[in-house]
Amino acid sequence: MTQPAPMLSPEAAGAGAFERLQALTAPEMARVNAEIAARMRSEHTKLIPQVAAHLIGAGGKRLRPLLTLAAAKLCGYAGDNHVLLATAVEFIHNATLLHDDVVDESARRRGRPTANTVFGPKPSVLVGDFLFARSFQLMVETGSVAVLGVLSNAAAVIVEGEVLQLAAANSLAGGEDVYFQVIRGKTAALFEAAAQAGGMVAGASAAQVAALAAYGDALGVAFQIVDDLLDYGGASAALGKDAGDDFREGKATLPVLLAFARGDAAAQAFWRRVIEKRDQRDGDLETALRLMRETGALAATRARAETHAARARAALEIFPDCPLKAALSDIAAFVVARAY
Amino acid sequence: MTQPAPMLSPEAAGAGAFERLQALTAPEMARVNAEIAARMRSEHTKLIPQVAAHLIGAGGKRLRPLLTLAAAKLCGYAGDNHVLLATAVEFIHNATLLHDDVVDESARRRGRPTANTVFGPKPSVLVGDFLFARSFQLMVETGSVAVLGVLSNAAAVIVEGEVLQLAAANSLAGGEDVYFQVIRGKTAALFEAAAQAGGMVAGASAAQVAALAAYGDALGVAFQIVDDLLDYGGASAALGKDAGDDFREGKATLPVLLAFARGDAAAQAFWRRVIEKRDQRDGDLETALRLMRETGALAATRARAETHAARARAALEIFPDCPLKAALSDIAAFVVARAY
Repeated sequence: MTQPAPMLSPEAAGAGAFERLQALTAPEMARVNAEIAARMRSEHTKLIPQVAAHLIGAGGKRLRPLLTLAAAKLCGYAGDNHVLLATAVEFIHNATLLHDDVVDESARRRGRPTANTVFGPKPSVLVGDFLFARSFQLMVETGSVAVLGVLSNAAAVIVEGEVLQLAAANSLAGGEDVYFQVIRGKTAALFEAAAQAGGMVAGASAAQVAALAAYGDALGVAFQIVDDLLDYGGASAALGKDAGDDFREGKATLPVLLAFARGDAAAQAFWRRVIEKRDQRDGDLETALRLMRETGALAATRARAETHAARARAALEIFPDCPLKAALSDIAAFVVARAY
Repeated sequence: MTQPAPMLSPEAAGAGAFERLQALTAPEMARVNAEIAARMRSEHTKLIPQVAAHLIGAGGKRLRPLLTLAAAKLCGYAGDNHVLLATAVEFIHNATLLHDDVVDESARRRGRPTANTVFGPKPSVLVGDFLFARSFQLMVETGSVAVLGVLSNAAAVIVEGEVLQLAAANSLAGGEDVYFQVIRGKTAALFEAAAQAGGMVAGASAAQVAALAAYGDALGVAFQIVDDLLDYGGASAALGKDAGDDFREGKATLPVLLAFARGDAAAQAFWRRVIEKRDQRDGDLETALRLMRETGALAATRARAETHAARARAALEIFPDCPLKAALSDIAAFVVARAY
């Protein structure tokens, strides 16, 4: 009788998970990177590859195309279309980033000035549109209307999430319901579609495709919760140098919503002032962190992320054990491990 | 023996042409308008239909979806997919308008304040993205990868045209070559795809589909030339109240490029100052108009539009005579008649 593998802590399972998944899909990702470079080109204008390369060339984890490649490979795919789809997924992601940085007037992204800062809003809007159009051209090349359906639905849902966020950004009234609607749209929809498309292109069974979609959705939700938690320094509330941006912008993210729901009348008045009225004074960020710690809001936020990460791992159960399944499962731990 | 129909002047053929084409596609356009209203809705946020309705509800001629409907009907189509495609075409057009108004910081469109003015750039960027995503969802519903290919190619070419315009806007150096590249992208590509998609959805022959594409391209080029001419008051140079915008923005449109190419050294210095350096003084617009008249640049611009309108009419020759063919042919005259 073999011993079951010992249950790893999230930190232990997460450590190196990303690198393991990268290693398992390295040849395909090299091809995705070549496609990205080729498809950024435009016959007519140098400005498009310049702006696109500024953002896409800066790297980023390529987590979303990695999901497409890994999902397709997990389902035994041996063709070429997953490379095209992974490229399309990365283009959609970067199109939304270009537009987000215009919408949010963000100055920095991936450790460098945004395209919006360097090239201005006009090229950022137009090159975002270009990447979006290119992503559909790539999908058309695969010839699969079903995959086009999944990714065009995701594109609509992403924008709906962003518009909802715009409308609800400084409001505490919507609570967790609106928060989860927003992050399902703006983040989880593309994770879900990326993983699902990988299964579809591989001709996986309906149950496997559904499992991959559920995995992507849960992973995306966990990912965004952790992102929002990290803006307050993670569960340990140790503020990094870029921390506090969400607070200064009065964003009603999960740590805020939980601290508000658990706060007494004085605390609730504080949150209304700093988030809804955006009337912020010296020391308010420190007060916010103290209230988040005292009410257990930070730990509760991390617990929500862990629940979703566990859902992601559970969704993979229908697949036979293999190194790719283990790596995808550990990625869920990796995503949450960032929050410690 | 029947007499051939007398050759009408562009003014006479153009008069009422738009209304005739509208009448011939009225039931289908009513369904397009219903689809537009239904597909602007979002489960999650009221802001999307508000912003979209501000622009699309303001009307406009719906010339592009009209082309799709008329082309499909001309090819004998009796299904439903042309309605979905025409809606998709109108959504792509309005998505580009929303983004253009952000990029150009335009204050007015279709006789009212732009969405950018009323709602701000953030909703304008995001709702443009939403309409773009919705247009692909509509195309997916038709199940035709070939049509998706045509329209996603058009979307990429549109943006390339706009980026090229951004890069070349205040430059006289590119001359007519760059000008035609820009308008083929930013305007003619969607006219072409709109007409072509109508033929494709009807299952028309390759020759008919190619003829419709050529018709749309030529019509779109004529349309944009006339638009640029009207900004200088048309061939009669009678300035309307919105005229002169392109001049103030230093846009190197066809009337400017022709007046520059035909000007003497003093005139060329004038154009370099007002267009390339954008150093404009009182009386410069009047000087510009005088130079355009004296060099024959306005008449030559109109002649270019007429050449393309004639190409559009010629492209339709392979279709058997019928009221729809006549109306589409007359639309080419209608487009140019605006320039008188």
